[in-house]
Amino acid sequence: MGNQKNPSFLLEKPNHFTYADRPIPHLNNPEHAHSVLIKVQWTGICGSDVHYWVDGAIGDFVVKAPMVLGHESSGTIHSIGSKVTKVKPNDRVAIEPGIPCRRCARCREGRYNLCAEMQFAATPPVDGTLTRFYRVPEDFCYVLPESVSLEEGALMEPLAVGVHIVRQAAVVPGNRVVVFGCGPVGLLAMAVAKAYGATTVVAVDVNEKRVRFAEGYAATCGFVSGREDAPEELAGRIVGDAALGDGADVAIDASGAEACVQAGMHILRAGGTYIQGGMGKPNVVFPIGLLGPKEPTIKGCFRYAAGDYSTAVMLVATGRVKVKELITAKFPFEKAEEAFVETRDAKGIKILIKGPEDEFTLNEH
Amino acid sequence: MGNQKNPSFLLEKPNHFTYADRPIPHLNNPEHAHSVLIKVQWTGICGSDVHYWVDGAIGDFVVKAPMVLGHESSGTIHSIGSKVTKVKPNDRVAIEPGIPCRRCARCREGRYNLCAEMQFAATPPVDGTLTRFYRVPEDFCYVLPESVSLEEGALMEPLAVGVHIVRQAAVVPGNRVVVFGCGPVGLLAMAVAKAYGATTVVAVDVNEKRVRFAEGYAATCGFVSGREDAPEELAGRIVGDAALGDGADVAIDASGAEACVQAGMHILRAGGTYIQGGMGKPNVVFPIGLLGPKEPTIKGCFRYAAGDYSTAVMLVATGRVKVKELITAKFPFEKAEEAFVETRDAKGIKILIKGPEDEFTLNEH
Amino acid sequence: MGNQKNPSFLLEKPNHFTYADRPIPHLNNPEHAHSVLIKVQWTGICGSDVHYWVDGAIGDFVVKAPMVLGHESSGTIHSIGSKVTKVKPNDRVAIEPGIPCRRCARCREGRYNLCAEMQFAATPPVDGTLTRFYRVPEDFCYVLPESVSLEEGALMEPLAVGVHIVRQAAVVPGNRVVVFGCGPVGLLAMAVAKAYGATTVVAVDVNEKRVRFAEGYAATCGFVSGREDAPEELAGRIVGDAALGDGADVAIDASGAEACVQAGMHILRAGGTYIQGGMGKPNVVFPIGLLGPKEPTIKGCFRYAAGDYSTAVMLVATGRVKVKELITAKFPFEKAEEAFVETRDAKGIKILIKGPEDEFTLNEH
Amino acid sequence: MGNQKNPSFLLEKPNHFTYADRPIPHLNNPEHAHSVLIKVQWTGICGSDVHYWVDGAIGDFVVKAPMVLGHESSGTIHSIGSKVTKVKPNDRVAIEPGIPCRRCARCREGRYNLCAEMQFAATPPVDGTLTRFYRVPEDFCYVLPESVSLEEGALMEPLAVGVHIVRQAAVVPGNRVVVFGCGPVGLLAMAVAKAYGATTVVAVDVNEKRVRFAEGYAATCGFVSGREDAPEELAGRIVGDAALGDGADVAIDASGAEACVQAGMHILRAGGTYIQGGMGKPNVVFPIGLLGPKEPTIKGCFRYAAGDYSTAVMLVATGRVKVKELITAKFPFEKAEEAFVETRDAKGIKILIKGPEDEFTLNEH
Repeated sequence: MGNQKNPSFLLEKPNHFTYADRPIPHLNNPEHAHSVLIKVQWTGICGSDVHYWVDGAIGDFVVKAPMVLGHESSGTIHSIGSKVTKVKPNDRVAIEPGIPCRRCARCREGRYNLCAEMQFAATPPVDGTLTRFYRVPEDFCYVLPESVSLEEGALMEPLAVGVHIVRQAAVVPGNRVVVFGCGPVGLLAMAVAKAYGATTVVAVDVNEKRVRFAEGYAATCGFVSGREDAPEELAGRIVGDAALGDGADVAIDASGAEACVQAGMHILRAGGTYIQGGMGKPNVVFPIGLLGPKEPTIKGCFRYAAGDYSTAVMLVATGRVKVKELITAKFPFEKAEEAFVETRDAKGIKILIKGPEDEFTLNEH
Repeated sequence: MGNQKNPSFLLEKPNHFTYADRPIPHLNNPEHAHSVLIKVQWTGICGSDVHYWVDGAIGDFVVKAPMVLGHESSGTIHSIGSKVTKVKPNDRVAIEPGIPCRRCARCREGRYNLCAEMQFAATPPVDGTLTRFYRVPEDFCYVLPESVSLEEGALMEPLAVGVHIVRQAAVVPGNRVVVFGCGPVGLLAMAVAKAYGATTVVAVDVNEKRVRFAEGYAATCGFVSGREDAPEELAGRIVGDAALGDGADVAIDASGAEACVQAGMHILRAGGTYIQGGMGKPNVVFPIGLLGPKEPTIKGCFRYAAGDYSTAVMLVATGRVKVKELITAKFPFEKAEEAFVETRDAKGIKILIKGPEDEFTLNEH
Repeated sequence: MGNQKNPSFLLEKPNHFTYADRPIPHLNNPEHAHSVLIKVQWTGICGSDVHYWVDGAIGDFVVKAPMVLGHESSGTIHSIGSKVTKVKPNDRVAIEPGIPCRRCARCREGRYNLCAEMQFAATPPVDGTLTRFYRVPEDFCYVLPESVSLEEGALMEPLAVGVHIVRQAAVVPGNRVVVFGCGPVGLLAMAVAKAYGATTVVAVDVNEKRVRFAEGYAATCGFVSGREDAPEELAGRIVGDAALGDGADVAIDASGAEACVQAGMHILRAGGTYIQGGMGKPNVVFPIGLLGPKEPTIKGCFRYAAGDYSTAVMLVATGRVKVKELITAKFPFEKAEEAFVETRDAKGIKILIKGPEDEFTLNEH
Repeated sequence: MGNQKNPSFLLEKPNHFTYADRPIPHLNNPEHAHSVLIKVQWTGICGSDVHYWVDGAIGDFVVKAPMVLGHESSGTIHSIGSKVTKVKPNDRVAIEPGIPCRRCARCREGRYNLCAEMQFAATPPVDGTLTRFYRVPEDFCYVLPESVSLEEGALMEPLAVGVHIVRQAAVVPGNRVVVFGCGPVGLLAMAVAKAYGATTVVAVDVNEKRVRFAEGYAATCGFVSGREDAPEELAGRIVGDAALGDGADVAIDASGAEACVQAGMHILRAGGTYIQGGMGKPNVVFPIGLLGPKEPTIKGCFRYAAGDYSTAVMLVATGRVKVKELITAKFPFEKAEEAFVETRDAKGIKILIKGPEDEFTLNEH
């Protein structure tokens, strides 16, 4: 890579971004023989990126040293390690940004998202993908078919979250699914639920504009909830409006809001499944009394695991899920902070930052 | 049955018991061709029976007319319907006391405990088993092998609850299981978990005496919790004491106590399973934030379904679970109210009432 | 029903049909309080019907007395039992033609298709549906939405077979599925697999015309096999042609042909699933050696069970599966034998017989 | 290791053993940072070892160059790589002898036994464990508790095969299990099935002595089959003798014999599970007709995967399974060929070879 640099967009400390050069990862070491170096092309901004920027921490994860943000990325393969066989230079790929240890009980049983030694991009202290060169194992790259653009490739990450949610819910054709929250994860969960055959997909949000977007995107019907709605009554009204009969087969919370968690439990039919897909307060008042008579299955969701990313690429490549219409703005690398401002201010749905162009230099930023 | 009577022990209204004759169920109608008439021998008192007595209601189920209590019963077959083939008169049986419709979606898919039309003994307005003659379909009778006494047969009901809990938890050999609550259901869940191969079974309760009993019964270790313990710290201390490593594979709440629900969630390893086996307040503060990173499976439990009762009988018949030592007192039918008083006052573990003897007459009571 | 008759099309003995009046089933008995009387509208002919006609037996099931044939039927509700709540007179319904005991272990665990006491239409000695009035329990009727015609309703039976096959296979979006056999069951299995998200559906048959039809119907590609093909090589060629990579996720045999069973096993990827959906010889030479290194899951299929019929109706009602194009001929009741002749001679795909019109009388036939 | 040697027992070519020095594996390379060097203590001889010796090949796996045999081993940790944290020098361990790639779809989904790039000890061209020093990743070592001897540790490999079989079968308490074949794998499958709660475990073999041993070991009853028995009748007689009612819940073939495969299918109850645990001829005549009406689940078994080895160690450590009594002979390293001769001649059950003692030198052999 000669005298190339690795310009990166750093969170220096809470509320303070900077640009800096970072060492270009190498592939020489035998331990990187199965890795590739990717030239990052597009990166979506996630709520968690904004959180680190604004608060400097998410729960126990505290940014103690300057850290590169970004983990929703696509790129092109720049170079490959000596044992790489599945990809080659110039391949266009989506990047799965969390590398598990591959050796613990969770990794070996196929639930690597629960690996305690996970190295996840832009989760302190691991650097993220808002950089020129990024190294990942070849099996964490997913080649994009020609029909999928690099911009769309950056959305494989939130789509994989949606896939994981829907697979945890075990949605099958004919299911009636209610999704609380019409942000990117909620929208993608709706689209995936539909692709998995859900015949009813109800979108619920307090923001009417978002509900209308969801109806035009993947929901079969939308419901604008009031902030003051009592959860049980809200659930009852949705059941009536959406003709859910004895209740929803699956309720997915992608909002993290306490009222939605409660309404999601009340809206289930006996034997239904509730999925917690959104993060909110650590503790909520929860209608645990329903766990008896309804005997529901409740599952959490953490990122994505085996098969989720490849399913995400398949869903877009085959037209089952559309992600392009979720991209509401794009910014060049030198205006990365503006992308964060717009995401923080909830302008648009998914905002992308272009990876540093070849002519980008640090001197000017 | 000639001039036989059907003396029954009735809840006339809250806090008021009485004895009365009730019509003897018949088997003549073609719709009862597959039913049998049972002479009730022993009935255990359940917390729900006491609830109806004291409060007159459990949630939406309100006692509006005099109702026979009791649903944990064994008996002998008195007579059989015209199409009965699996049992015969004089067979000693445990009675599964809830008859589902057999036609709804839940029944047909094998989750008949969720049937909306369930007729469950001693759940208003359905009469219970504290009576001389009780009618059930033949497939809701479970023949007791010679090695199982009729007294033990009355414990098949709470044992089936324990079986259902452990099957919902999918306990397999080697699992580390923590059970909160050392009442009958908690104790039986421990015993079943052990029979299913759990290598560590931790009994937790605020009552030291109960914990000690659990240790002598089925737990591999016990833990006395303080009423003021912070749930997360309580969970941490149990993990340390019981050497649970990265946490419990399975946590079962059989207490219904808010602090136990919370501690049960905190004690799970990543990917673990939480089972709500006990009923308490309809709403609790719940650590929903753990549903992300731990990605647990949470399941409710409602009574028992296909296979639970036959498994319960098998477990006792083969010596895998012992129930005799849970029977702490027995009362004759004419002293049924005393059994309720002792159960209400938490004297002993499981208290049985003998079905009315042949010489029992209503005149004297 | 006044002086109405119940004209029926009977298999008097092998190779000999006749028409006769049969008693009209009644609903008076309490044991039929949940049943309905259906006026049969359309009945499809199944290979098994032809078998009974030609051979007088299928395996252990021998026609020993005159029996009404037919079990793939739709109809309109004529009258209802005293406790029926889910359907009403004049409702247009598909009929699920096998009534299980609802009491055995299999029924109670949700696998009622394995009930040993199953009463299945047109399986000796139980009469079938080629009759005017047919009685079934209300939960074995499936109301057809307006968008589904009664002719299509008659295809819910073979479609439910296809649904059962695909649910046994646990097909999920992205799966590569190979179906051997392009008869009605194979075609419907392809359509359902696609509706469940299979991205590759390969149709294999020795008959090129059938393969071409399958390609136009639901397969993503077709493959004409030679009768002399060695199974392992056949599998290899299909993998190459259909770009199946390391093999099929799911192989479904809907042919019963020995060579297809063998090729189906060879075509699987490691960890794939093989489904036996077709009936052929009782014994075949089978590549059992593949059960080690490929560690496949193999499942049989018997008719349909909980949820299959309602899924079938949903698939057609929502346009996910089309069945109209499989109906290649229709015959009036008085020409029922012609429908059997054409089915026997493999003319067309699915041939329907209209239920007896009101003006149909036995005198003339 | 100074001037230490790595004396190894080699299959030079079919039917010809030799001893030779092999390079001692090192741990210096970063790619071995998570590996350990083990001093091999005991190695059991497996049928596959004998196969390679006698035939020079198993299926497509052909011994083309001298290869060290052995893969059922225990040892002590000699030294550890720079990043090893779970074990330390001198730890006594069982060795899981197959190292998957950890990157393919199968590895990532938790079925690493199906990895196409598996490096398995003593499967050409990978050297086995009949050597002094053997290198494995730390997560393929299982520390033996004090209660488990190193001799027993060598049996963790066939026991893990038995665990895998029983987990594939999903045996639960109360199951009636029939095992065909009373060799080491069959015996261990019986013991594990019992530990998983099977109440009936029937041992079937043509060799009466083996059946009697099985009865004394883990079977609840034994059945000596005749070589000429018709499979369906054999199944019927076993059902009668062992009081299996409507058939076995689970049938396990650990023989590879065609008649046993057939009888195993016939002996299943409707909805039962058949597991192919033994290897025999690549093709057998198979009663595929049963896949309809019985709708069984059939699964293959290939070695062991996530959790099997740790379960094996747990089962022995807690006394649930006993393996000591299966060790029928032990040979010093210098008499390794005698161990092969005895295994080939079916003398005893499991025969162990001691790893080379410190004083063992190649000069003398």
